Amino acid sequence: MSDVTLLVLDAEPLPRLGSLTGRTRILHGDESTISSQLPEADVLLVWDFFSDAVRRAWPGDGARPRWVHTASAGVDHLMCPELAASDTVVTNARGIFDQPIAEYVAGLVIAAAKDFNGTNELQRQRRWRHRETRRVAGTRAVVVGSGPIGRAIARTLEALGVVVALTGRTARPGVHGPDELVPLLARADWVICAAPLTDTTRGMFDARAFDAMSPGAYFVNVGRGQLVVEQDLLAALTKRWIAGAALDVFEQEPLDPGSPLWDVPGLTVSPHMSGDVVGWRDELGSQFLELYDLWESGRPLPNVVDKNVGYVPMHD
Amino acid sequence: MSDVTLLVLDAEPLPRLGSLTGRTRILHGDESTISSQLPEADVLLVWDFFSDAVRRAWPGDGARPRWVHTASAGVDHLMCPELAASDTVVTNARGIFDQPIAEYVAGLVIAAAKDFNGTNELQRQRRWRHRETRRVAGTRAVVVGSGPIGRAIARTLEALGVVVALTGRTARPGVHGPDELVPLLARADWVICAAPLTDTTRGMFDARAFDAMSPGAYFVNVGRGQLVVEQDLLAALTKRWIAGAALDVFEQEPLDPGSPLWDVPGLTVSPHMSGDVVGWRDELGSQFLELYDLWESGRPLPNVVDKNVGYVPMHD
Repeated sequence: MSDVTLLVLDAEPLPRLGSLTGRTRILHGDESTISSQLPEADVLLVWDFFSDAVRRAWPGDGARPRWVHTASAGVDHLMCPELAASDTVVTNARGIFDQPIAEYVAGLVIAAAKDFNGTNELQRQRRWRHRETRRVAGTRAVVVGSGPIGRAIARTLEALGVVVALTGRTARPGVHGPDELVPLLARADWVICAAPLTDTTRGMFDARAFDAMSPGAYFVNVGRGQLVVEQDLLAALTKRWIAGAALDVFEQEPLDPGSPLWDVPGLTVSPHMSGDVVGWRDELGSQFLELYDLWESGRPLPNVVDKNVGYVPMHD
Repeated sequence: MSDVTLLVLDAEPLPRLGSLTGRTRILHGDESTISSQLPEADVLLVWDFFSDAVRRAWPGDGARPRWVHTASAGVDHLMCPELAASDTVVTNARGIFDQPIAEYVAGLVIAAAKDFNGTNELQRQRRWRHRETRRVAGTRAVVVGSGPIGRAIARTLEALGVVVALTGRTARPGVHGPDELVPLLARADWVICAAPLTDTTRGMFDARAFDAMSPGAYFVNVGRGQLVVEQDLLAALTKRWIAGAALDVFEQEPLDPGSPLWDVPGLTVSPHMSGDVVGWRDELGSQFLELYDLWESGRPLPNVVDKNVGYVPMHD
């Protein structure tokens, strides 16, 4: 057995770490124990990606893991100034969620264009009412977030004939910068938020952003809940500034049963599941094991997060 | 003014025939008048594509139009042995519905894979319940019907990463023949019916076909209602021979408010609208005017239906 200690911030179901058995010392922790376990750990696997226990426990005393891997695309739940300033390497689950989320968004776009919700409601009422719906090909989308998820969404929408503008933190070939966002929003039929949650992006979809959109626009958030000012979205839908929206992520998850968001007309609420296809947890576990082998043998790790910006920078 | 008489089997809203004004004698007819008007007409525009008045009136006495155009993809509502045996040219609205129907089917496929209906039901109950859903890429579809609509569906699903087998009346490169259908059904996640209604295809989706499908299969009919034996589909869904279905077309349209189909678990009912995007009627009208110009000047018409098989044969 190596002298490496792996600490796992657990969540059910536990990850399959079979190939590490008898090779690595594995500690299992939770929100109440992680603070005291951190000094012992060389590696931290954040399997409970809904918990912000790491962010809270990290600034304490003692040694800290040299490598932190989170089984999620976003790292907002674990980043803190002390971790950002440290030598610890942070990696994420880049790649696992791209295509599933892109499919999910494409489905939301078609469902809105073809008024599937209206059809379901009429079916419940046993009413035959023919309507004309929208052609998806030739419509315009803005995808906010130019990482792998945003780019997979763009590719998938483009395959359906949608004209897509991708926006990111900085303008570069194929990606529009923040100063172009408002004019792009004004022309978009679909506004898709797939940005990382950082100090720059927090609350970026506020009253001003919704006001910039067209009355026919449909807004989708598959990024993080805090990217959207929910009160402002609720107001925008109620005042018909925009035509509809779908939220898969929320400021507080799970969404409280008493939240007004559940029954805003034109708003679809789903429980943070857009990227989670059958087998996703096994994929997340396998990905960690692949990275572990690289780390143990001293080879370079993929998916290394730039801790100053809060995501894995693009290299192409 | 030419000495051509155009008879229009009307439906609301009427077609825009502006460029024929003052150039062609236009008669407007309905189910009660068409029988007496047919002998006067050189050209018949079947604008009311839900009516079978032509099929009923055609076998009568007197002269018959030399050209019949229907503002629909299918010609089942107008074909009869006497029309098939005549010299009258029949054309259809080939091309208008392809991409809209393909988008609609892609939306149904993603909505089923991602359980959008389950999400909507949970939202109504204000319940946050995360589920794992299916990845669309890598699933298998059989598209029954190798005309322009079936091929547009195949292209669109392939763009989403679905592995598609196209079947038709005869095997040819890229198209499987009828003898391959049952084994293909057994392996399909998605079975999409986009076939023309002919004597060969009527009732082809019966208990035997549903029995051949896998328990996880999802069936979609965007062709004609009579391609499916509705009682057999209802039984297949009730017995869970297949996982779900969506019907956009029915044996009788509109579907009777008392039909048991409205609330079969797992069945989505929509009112024959999959191809009808905003502007579709204008597109149908423009297409007829283009064909009219060709016909009047004696040039060859596109979209000529092979009256013996009941659709426009593919030439590529």
